[in-house]
Amino acid sequence: MVVLETAGAMLEASRRWRVEGRSIGLVPTMGALHAGHLSLVELARGENDIVVVSIFVNPIQFGPGEDFERYPRDVARDTGMLARAEVDAIYEPPVEVMYRHDSTTRVHVGAVAEPLEGEKRPGHFEGVATVVTKLFAAVEPDRAYFGQKDAQQVAVVKRLTCDLDLGVDVRVGPIVREPDGLALSSRNVYLDAAERKAALALSTALREAATVYASGERDPDRLQAVLEARLRTEPLVKVDYAEVVDPATFRKPGTLAVLAARVGKTRLIDNHDLTEPFPG
Amino acid sequence: MVVLETAGAMLEASRRWRVEGRSIGLVPTMGALHAGHLSLVELARGENDIVVVSIFVNPIQFGPGEDFERYPRDVARDTGMLARAEVDAIYEPPVEVMYRHDSTTRVHVGAVAEPLEGEKRPGHFEGVATVVTKLFAAVEPDRAYFGQKDAQQVAVVKRLTCDLDLGVDVRVGPIVREPDGLALSSRNVYLDAAERKAALALSTALREAATVYASGERDPDRLQAVLEARLRTEPLVKVDYAEVVDPATFRKPGTLAVLAARVGKTRLIDNHDLTEPFPG
Repeated sequence: MVVLETAGAMLEASRRWRVEGRSIGLVPTMGALHAGHLSLVELARGENDIVVVSIFVNPIQFGPGEDFERYPRDVARDTGMLARAEVDAIYEPPVEVMYRHDSTTRVHVGAVAEPLEGEKRPGHFEGVATVVTKLFAAVEPDRAYFGQKDAQQVAVVKRLTCDLDLGVDVRVGPIVREPDGLALSSRNVYLDAAERKAALALSTALREAATVYASGERDPDRLQAVLEARLRTEPLVKVDYAEVVDPATFRKPGTLAVLAARVGKTRLIDNHDLTEPFPG
Repeated sequence: MVVLETAGAMLEASRRWRVEGRSIGLVPTMGALHAGHLSLVELARGENDIVVVSIFVNPIQFGPGEDFERYPRDVARDTGMLARAEVDAIYEPPVEVMYRHDSTTRVHVGAVAEPLEGEKRPGHFEGVATVVTKLFAAVEPDRAYFGQKDAQQVAVVKRLTCDLDLGVDVRVGPIVREPDGLALSSRNVYLDAAERKAALALSTALREAATVYASGERDPDRLQAVLEARLRTEPLVKVDYAEVVDPATFRKPGTLAVLAARVGKTRLIDNHDLTEPFPG
């Protein structure tokens, strides 16, 4: 397993693999790896000759007052996990290499990046779109793997990949959950015992909405009310949004239930396609 | 010589060449080719195994009321010229393929794209940056060739190529001029006889400023006054700007004299590095 720290070295390695006729899969991450990331690595492993995992906590996708500084980082642990997962390369640029002091270019995705997360986290998707464009340019992967947990990010990445002709097949791995339903997230480590218990309201709300949908309810306002009612039962949970939207545009109407809430100081998101039974 | 009309077909061809170990040079154009374009093709021919010329009149870099509709187009003539220049491929996507009805993503370059052309043509450099990002993604060239005539475009393209890790060596060809000094431009065909004569004020102004600079003048305001004085002698010329700026940032101070003016209804630009003697 090689570790590459500059876009130039990464591109050189990638083009060497390409000359050898090997296909390349990229799994972009911010480190603090968990079973959700590893499921994406496994997907990539099955579909490509070479698997590259990028580890980069992207400062420009965090707003002021968000958790950039305290975001969990454990390079040694991540590296060990990726070596055991038989990853071929880690692309891990230092922040001052990724964003030179004089860099000014940003990628704006437009409509799909505007509501929900886009509204609650101004600048977030500009940061995501910019770093994904850079990662795709440096790795030139055939396929790139994103988790459904960040559903709007998936829609944003698909939009920009198409719009900018990036030539990458954007693949999406299912949400990986704890046995009780909580979606895996690197931010779950922030939760204390009471918050961990309260956080379960998110997946429970989605489960209940899926049940109501399966029983025939199609009224978006009533489905939204089901989500909100469950979230309101937990005093530790403050809802950012709870809506049912189209998974490609993130506008109503649709069948993707999307939630964001603060549990104590920790902001969590989750989602579920109501046309599918809730797992577990 | 092959003609490719989609980003997918272009990328497939490009990756085939790469597997064969061949280097790729891209010359982006809007067609209406002249000797300036051909000098870039020749540069590319000397430095790469494969030369790709893109022909695309990019609607999103034209503002409302600009000359998108009447911009000169002559595909048959362009194709003949490129075949004779031993170009390997023309990348010529239809506009509805380049910009799908649902596309929304745009590339913003920031500071260097703001003054001068950026101020006079709002949205112009967003259009340029977006299409160049798309062309680089589809062609994955080793080198791309731009004319110094569009000096601020060169600075914008260099900035975004660096910032987005596009891995392309941006090469710049010198301005090609008519014997009397007028910089070649596809827009020169718009000029009637009187305008053609008046248009000479641009290159004459640059020549005079270079002479004054060579005689020791370094005061930016006085160099600017030399430019403006010459342009004011022509009643058909309306100056958009005449400044002396840094060629990387397009802010003062610097040694690059840049001009934009309307000659009748035709907007022309020209520039010259005052540390160099004016040619001819």
